[in-house]
Amino acid sequence: MLVWNQLDQQAQLKLLTRPAVSAGAGVQIAVEGIIEEVRQKGDKALFEMAEQFDNRQSDRLRVTEDEIAQSELQLSSELKNAIDQAYNNIRAFHELQLPESKMLETQSGVVCELKYQAIDAVGIYVPGGSAPLPSSVLMQGVCAQLSGAKTVVLATPVKGDERIHPAILYAAKKCDINIIVESGGAGVIAAMALGTESVPKVDKVFGPGNAFVTMAKQLLSQSVPGFAIDMPAGPSEVLVIADEHANPAFAAADLLSQAEHGADSQVLLLCDSASFINEVEAEITRQLAVLSRADIAKKAMENSALILVESIEQAFELSAEYGPEHLILQIRDAQSRIDLVKNAGSVFVGDYTPESAGDYASGTNHVLPTYGYSKTYSSLNLMDFFRTYTVQSITKQGLLNLSKAILPLAEAEGLDAHANAVAIRINGGK
Amino acid sequence: MLVWNQLDQQAQLKLLTRPAVSAGAGVQIAVEGIIEEVRQKGDKALFEMAEQFDNRQSDRLRVTEDEIAQSELQLSSELKNAIDQAYNNIRAFHELQLPESKMLETQSGVVCELKYQAIDAVGIYVPGGSAPLPSSVLMQGVCAQLSGAKTVVLATPVKGDERIHPAILYAAKKCDINIIVESGGAGVIAAMALGTESVPKVDKVFGPGNAFVTMAKQLLSQSVPGFAIDMPAGPSEVLVIADEHANPAFAAADLLSQAEHGADSQVLLLCDSASFINEVEAEITRQLAVLSRADIAKKAMENSALILVESIEQAFELSAEYGPEHLILQIRDAQSRIDLVKNAGSVFVGDYTPESAGDYASGTNHVLPTYGYSKTYSSLNLMDFFRTYTVQSITKQGLLNLSKAILPLAEAEGLDAHANAVAIRINGGK
Repeated sequence: MLVWNQLDQQAQLKLLTRPAVSAGAGVQIAVEGIIEEVRQKGDKALFEMAEQFDNRQSDRLRVTEDEIAQSELQLSSELKNAIDQAYNNIRAFHELQLPESKMLETQSGVVCELKYQAIDAVGIYVPGGSAPLPSSVLMQGVCAQLSGAKTVVLATPVKGDERIHPAILYAAKKCDINIIVESGGAGVIAAMALGTESVPKVDKVFGPGNAFVTMAKQLLSQSVPGFAIDMPAGPSEVLVIADEHANPAFAAADLLSQAEHGADSQVLLLCDSASFINEVEAEITRQLAVLSRADIAKKAMENSALILVESIEQAFELSAEYGPEHLILQIRDAQSRIDLVKNAGSVFVGDYTPESAGDYASGTNHVLPTYGYSKTYSSLNLMDFFRTYTVQSITKQGLLNLSKAILPLAEAEGLDAHANAVAIRINGGK
Repeated sequence: MLVWNQLDQQAQLKLLTRPAVSAGAGVQIAVEGIIEEVRQKGDKALFEMAEQFDNRQSDRLRVTEDEIAQSELQLSSELKNAIDQAYNNIRAFHELQLPESKMLETQSGVVCELKYQAIDAVGIYVPGGSAPLPSSVLMQGVCAQLSGAKTVVLATPVKGDERIHPAILYAAKKCDINIIVESGGAGVIAAMALGTESVPKVDKVFGPGNAFVTMAKQLLSQSVPGFAIDMPAGPSEVLVIADEHANPAFAAADLLSQAEHGADSQVLLLCDSASFINEVEAEITRQLAVLSRADIAKKAMENSALILVESIEQAFELSAEYGPEHLILQIRDAQSRIDLVKNAGSVFVGDYTPESAGDYASGTNHVLPTYGYSKTYSSLNLMDFFRTYTVQSITKQGLLNLSKAILPLAEAEGLDAHANAVAIRINGGK
């Protein structure tokens, strides 16, 4: 246990600072090479990389429509129903977010409109690794589906002679995704940004990934005009604020559910009761013993911190400074203190709202800003699949009214032709 | 005049491709050095750079509150009124965009909420150069003001013994901006991202600038955790779609008002009438003769293209492919064809809606995506000064209902501790 007010300033700062995750020049050079390969050779580059990196020999990149259609036959009814239920909640909450155009006559004869356009073609990356991640498909796929994007490409890695897990295919099917690419890493990100024979070119790529994927997204968004990416990615994080009224077993379970994500997970508890922190520590030891990913969780817990604070108000201040991806509030009157929250990706309120509820099924999105980006970046939401633009229509009389603002400003800025485009109209023209 | 359907594919592609604007490694190395200087020396670095780059010796970086308060006394009443009128229109249109929280009980006992938080501290950069740009202050400052950001910093360059133009100070005053920094270039961008003695650290920097400013924004957003920037910047662009019902003098004036921005401006006319294009060409020559910035405009017009298309429908298709920053529609029934527009930053509809109306005063924002980014990026809008996050509150019964979705998904993803955080709650806990 650490006591916040007894730490010197440097130790305090260190606790709220994330470990550096700079990818290094080696990753950049490797990814630049991969992008160039894909640019020149298209599909062929992806096949070669599959052989080289994933020990995979395959003559196809795309899953067939039949495989997608039949995916649910390979699922237990429990898992199928779980995906259905999660899909329904996520869809309902994101449907709320569908944007509406807004129009205003700012002055007589001057009508301005704010409009929305779905991004035409989007790519969704679902990382592989130790387990399939159908929830990642739902979180991104529901948004793409609701936006009405014309082209949606899902890419996910497979190794050796694996197939994509049917839970991923079924989640994709629920979201009407029919372009599914069996390929991962920087190569398939480049394929989506540039287009190949089998992979349609998309306008924006979403989804987390390793250092190579992140670097590819960054480099391509800087070099392919119009190509965009979702948000900077970093290790997952949770911050729990608890008081003596909370349940230490629940708090421990929440800390561990973050810790099992990866050895680099960031896990913090802020609490104003020393005895509660001691109980949480004991619970962590007890619960860790039976976890299948105990090794990973243990490593993450070594970097974690259980911190005694002076007051819950101080906990809110420190949380705002840290800007956690997930913030769990297990405190008395949690509901009435939500407005104290700042700089969090998603907030979990009360004893019966574990992070895993939002990770899978409550309806909120689990793609959230990490690494302190929750000070400025939004949680993934439907607007990330749209763009906003404006339209104005002005009558001749409207332009005459407006000229009193335009002409002196254009003159002050030394832009004659700007003034002339107005003057020629209000003075007659041809 | 170019005839689209007579061009080969390569020539067509070239017309819709922007010239490369890669900053080059030299700029990156220089900017990295500048950032390091500011990190180490703070204000002192800015003073040294002012001397070195701007031939300026000054012992202050901040404009006094008195100077801001008295700025309007130095303005003509025409210019003051013009700023007031533009401010009112821009404010009214952006006020429409204030976000509202949304709440939904996705299933019994599971309440999800989408909330908004203003970004705390924002920086606004207004480039200098040949003229003061009060309109740039208004476009960004109104958003910051409406968002309720706690700290708003305005930075703009001054050379030699210049002072900031009172029109800029007055526009800032209208937007309640009282931190105004007399400093430009990559140095002041670094100062805003990192903080110095005189320049408060901000979370997000907005505004266009030269290659050094753009590079600084890019590098800092990748290296300072949580620090964000607005959008990629590029040369300004206009695309005019006109038919024979339009007025060639108006079309020419609009093309020229874009061309005078800079020699790298992109100017395109798409029209289905050869005789109309001829008339526009004659008008351009006539109007160019009397422009004060004729040299710049002439250079830009050399790279421009007046293109004869087969039909107005084809013009809309080409425009969608190009993705112009500004799109002007001078065609019959323009109003009823707005829905054909895709990938434009701001649209100007009808004979009496010149681009300069939106540049200054109609109410829409003039900070728009260029360089093809209008396929994916939004025009600057109030949401760029907010972030979105979510909150969920679940009852014990609600979690029991939700467990049917969470537990099978956590199991499929191999995440025991995620399942345990739910199981321990619905099975009792302490």
